[in-house]
Amino acid sequence: MKRTNFGKMQCPVARSLERVGEWWSILIIRDALNGLTRFDEFQRSLDIAPNMLTRRLNALVEAGLLERRRYHERPPRDEYVLTPCGRDFRPVVIALLTWGNSHFAPEGKSVVLINRETGVEAEPVLIDAISGKPISDRIFKAAPGPAASPKPNP
Amino acid sequence: MKRTNFGKMQCPVARSLERVGEWWSILIIRDALNGLTRFDEFQRSLDIAPNMLTRRLNALVEAGLLERRRYHERPPRDEYVLTPCGRDFRPVVIALLTWGNSHFAPEGKSVVLINRETGVEAEPVLIDAISGKPISDRIFKAAPGPAASPKPNP
Repeated sequence: MKRTNFGKMQCPVARSLERVGEWWSILIIRDALNGLTRFDEFQRSLDIAPNMLTRRLNALVEAGLLERRRYHERPPRDEYVLTPCGRDFRPVVIALLTWGNSHFAPEGKSVVLINRETGVEAEPVLIDAISGKPISDRIFKAAPGPAASPKPNP
Repeated sequence: MKRTNFGKMQCPVARSLERVGEWWSILIIRDALNGLTRFDEFQRSLDIAPNMLTRRLNALVEAGLLERRRYHERPPRDEYVLTPCGRDFRPVVIALLTWGNSHFAPEGKSVVLINRETGVEAEPVLIDAISGKPISDRIFKAAPGPAASPKPNP
């Protein structure tokens, strides 16, 4: 099934989804953020078919989230390293982690974020760096930006 | 194509993705967070086929992110309202918005988050509520939680 091309939508949420492509991509980025770089590492972690993994890695390279680097010449072997754009996806993964832990872990958390200096579990919360207020505050509202068309897409 | 059931994976990121199902669901939640509740509102906003929209709305109700409420008896008309779980998805959408604005808006931002009290554009950033430090800091690291299996899934 051909997916709608969200990239043409003005909405930055839709454009972002277009770039990550599908769920496997988010899990690959999650693993890359955890330090995985090699094909067999991703495959072991994700239990994904090799042709599917190849396709997703290529798509992430093309979308500019991963960079392919040769680490061995004979035989040729590449590894996959996050670009700055890929690393900037971290807040999305953390937000998903936090949401999952809050709502879909009836048996308790299986993954947490730890402050290495104190050993204390982090409580990720989204704030506005300007005002210091949590983004959950009702004072924050989505609005058309400078590049919005006269009749903006939502 | 049958999608892998990520819900069985221990990882909270994978479980979260299982709940939202696919991209349309995220865009529906985005619209619900912006105040949309009715079928025709979602349809106009998303330009999505009615049968697809029905399917996604039903799936979001079943997953516990939306609640169906009858607002008109004759003819019967339902609206869709976010549950607390659905509202808690907001940081994920904001994180996607921020990432999209940073990387995929060469012509400028089309959607921004505004502080209604000051009129100033917000700068969403994920911090640890305990230490106050940005989660981007290298001191934060994913680790097995209390409910992790002895050999945890990533």
